[in-house]
Amino acid sequence: MSRRLLEALFSAVGECVATGEAVRILCAQDASRLGWVKPLAVVRPRSADDVAATVRVLCDFGVPLYTRGGASGLSGGALVTRPGVVLDMAQMKGVLRISRRDRTVTALAGTLIGEIQKAAAALNLLYPPDPASAAFCSLGGNIAENAGGLRALKYGTTAHHLLAATVVTGSADILHLGSQTHKNVAGLNLLSLLCGSEGTLGVVTEATMRLLPAPPAVGCVSAVFETEEAAIEAAFGVLESGLLPRALEFVDGVCAKAAARVSDAAKNWACGKPFLIVEFDGTESAVRDECGQAEALLRAGALRVAAAYGKETERLWSARRVLSTALTSAAPRKVSEDICVPPSKLPQICRLIRSLSAPPHITACAYGHLGDGNLHVNFLLHSTDNAPVERLLDAVLALRGTITGEHGVGAAKLPFLKRQISPETLTLMRRIKSVFDPAGILNPQKAY
Amino acid sequence: MSRRLLEALFSAVGECVATGEAVRILCAQDASRLGWVKPLAVVRPRSADDVAATVRVLCDFGVPLYTRGGASGLSGGALVTRPGVVLDMAQMKGVLRISRRDRTVTALAGTLIGEIQKAAAALNLLYPPDPASAAFCSLGGNIAENAGGLRALKYGTTAHHLLAATVVTGSADILHLGSQTHKNVAGLNLLSLLCGSEGTLGVVTEATMRLLPAPPAVGCVSAVFETEEAAIEAAFGVLESGLLPRALEFVDGVCAKAAARVSDAAKNWACGKPFLIVEFDGTESAVRDECGQAEALLRAGALRVAAAYGKETERLWSARRVLSTALTSAAPRKVSEDICVPPSKLPQICRLIRSLSAPPHITACAYGHLGDGNLHVNFLLHSTDNAPVERLLDAVLALRGTITGEHGVGAAKLPFLKRQISPETLTLMRRIKSVFDPAGILNPQKAY
Repeated sequence: MSRRLLEALFSAVGECVATGEAVRILCAQDASRLGWVKPLAVVRPRSADDVAATVRVLCDFGVPLYTRGGASGLSGGALVTRPGVVLDMAQMKGVLRISRRDRTVTALAGTLIGEIQKAAAALNLLYPPDPASAAFCSLGGNIAENAGGLRALKYGTTAHHLLAATVVTGSADILHLGSQTHKNVAGLNLLSLLCGSEGTLGVVTEATMRLLPAPPAVGCVSAVFETEEAAIEAAFGVLESGLLPRALEFVDGVCAKAAARVSDAAKNWACGKPFLIVEFDGTESAVRDECGQAEALLRAGALRVAAAYGKETERLWSARRVLSTALTSAAPRKVSEDICVPPSKLPQICRLIRSLSAPPHITACAYGHLGDGNLHVNFLLHSTDNAPVERLLDAVLALRGTITGEHGVGAAKLPFLKRQISPETLTLMRRIKSVFDPAGILNPQKAY
Repeated sequence: MSRRLLEALFSAVGECVATGEAVRILCAQDASRLGWVKPLAVVRPRSADDVAATVRVLCDFGVPLYTRGGASGLSGGALVTRPGVVLDMAQMKGVLRISRRDRTVTALAGTLIGEIQKAAAALNLLYPPDPASAAFCSLGGNIAENAGGLRALKYGTTAHHLLAATVVTGSADILHLGSQTHKNVAGLNLLSLLCGSEGTLGVVTEATMRLLPAPPAVGCVSAVFETEEAAIEAAFGVLESGLLPRALEFVDGVCAKAAARVSDAAKNWACGKPFLIVEFDGTESAVRDECGQAEALLRAGALRVAAAYGKETERLWSARRVLSTALTSAAPRKVSEDICVPPSKLPQICRLIRSLSAPPHITACAYGHLGDGNLHVNFLLHSTDNAPVERLLDAVLALRGTITGEHGVGAAKLPFLKRQISPETLTLMRRIKSVFDPAGILNPQKAY
């Protein structure tokens, strides 16, 4: 079959097909580091028509299509798990239109989020979503995963900024969904359904995103605490005073110690203690005022507090930015979870995370978007034991939380999804998939 | 058939059924003032189980179900257009849970938005969506229409605040969608699809909404201009300076004249000239700073400018609030449109609206959410001629706008929808409806 399939692919989109072994291996994997299989071919489309032509061939053969953006996903959404074809969107990139007056940007799916942020900033506009992977993740991938990131507390996630998209369905229909306007309620909101569907309903080839006026100033406050509980309590104090930071980040003691091992800045500032970073944006005087108020509120319970403005904020962020690297190098096996709980349950879940550590074989730690209740829980493991992960997810669900706040279900969390979502709802999701993708070729056995 | 249907309804949800003629006539209509037919009965459910039982009976008989909240919709979404049964959610109301720490509120579908805003304010929280009908529109209706309102510029629409809901599908399944968390990407985002589906996919019986810290201060600036063009240009100046108001409202000269006829405040302030209202919220000093900057920016092109803070802002809003009443009393027939265009097209669309007036028979005017590009265009007609409405909608679509920014398609705009949405996309929408509502009983021939 695979020879006939390749012939059909070459005949449909010949110039876009790559079959070399190196590229096939490269395009089978993503940042999840999970197991993969080698795809039959890689297609690098130049247009929605190329995508539609590829989909038509794969429908005929009943062969899976794995769409791939920056491949920075942590849940294995882009992973090739059955012999199929990879649709590599990375080359289909570039900002097509950006308008200061319209406060919108239209870009091809492969465009990096960092490029979109830069294009917006050049016109004094802000693209609010800011995933940690902004420098290497793509617009299409962010839409597929409904990416969140550091500024979701104030600005929401990718879905809140998605206005229009060109989408190729599993039936090879090219649809133009949404509108170029900031508000639109004409017809069913298919665009929001596409957002976060992890490549299972359609392939986004270009999208129009809402931008905001760029706030003229940014300021941030970092505060170090003796305990996680004190840090969380202080964070509640900031929010309950009526302040709305754009970011409210948390790093627990274990993560702070890991950061201190790789960064002098982290070592000298947090000294291995839990800390918060609270960031505000707005007019110059508003930011000064808000940072001042946050500083006063945090000082009450903190060991030490510092504020910084403009480019100086980077100094305070550096202790947070090294975390991913610091944790990856800390153990032979790392399992990353992405739980989200109702904010009032944060103290409870942090206690539970601490209790899951069993030195020297299991270290459990957490950092992330405390303001949203969204923590990246990391298990540093010197064993293959998954019991602590299971205990965490069960506790999260018992507290009415979710197993994934922003990374997606992908392949990694699929085994746990049925603990969260009822069989009736899962059946409905699969029926909707059949409407978009009757042949079931789009990223099968992922997401739901 | 209708006797057997009523027997089945009484046997399923007897205590909830009303069949008196007065209540049936009352529940057939909504604020659209469009034509209606008398329903066979009205069901007032007390629970999701009552809704499911009602849906089961109507599926058996193949009879339409029209769900109704505050019935304040302007597009006829709740209108009874074929003999069927009304599901009146107005009595299923009340805040079930509200938490300061979680920043969420869970309420029954019939709860008025004003009640939710008040419950939030009592805990120093903000429920951001603020439709003009907040005092008499319901949570379920706001979700069904993805209601926008005055503060969408900064805070987005209802969909951006919807975290979880209990939904009864057209198959009488009771589903719990979403999660109690601020972020959640587990499975397909069915909740966003439900939001704005105008009662065609399911009946929301309760929902959990995201709240924000209540900003401690509010301030607003009103500016009067010689021409609409000057007002729009000044509004761009505010946004391009990096300020993000929570509301940026516009009233054209014709509307200002109508307001002046019913309100001394409007007469004395705007004197029948176009005006803007720009509102900011945040900390006390941030609001003072932002209002000061906006005042300076607006002063350049305006005839006069005034600022007000806290409760005093109401004084500046009053000239805007009387508009709906003022326009309704101005002509025997009023057609309200709810267009949205890319913001850069606002000057063009305002010129077009002016050109559609043909005194004394046709007066065209506009007011609304300029910051979003979303204008409520009103035609005051002394004739039955719909040509100016058609010309407006054609121009809006040619400018890549939408025929409805926030009021929904309902029954009123259905004839125009196929000019905006392709046959392939409409087919997909109807297939998705079949998944949720295989018998096609939920608000048929509405929305898409």
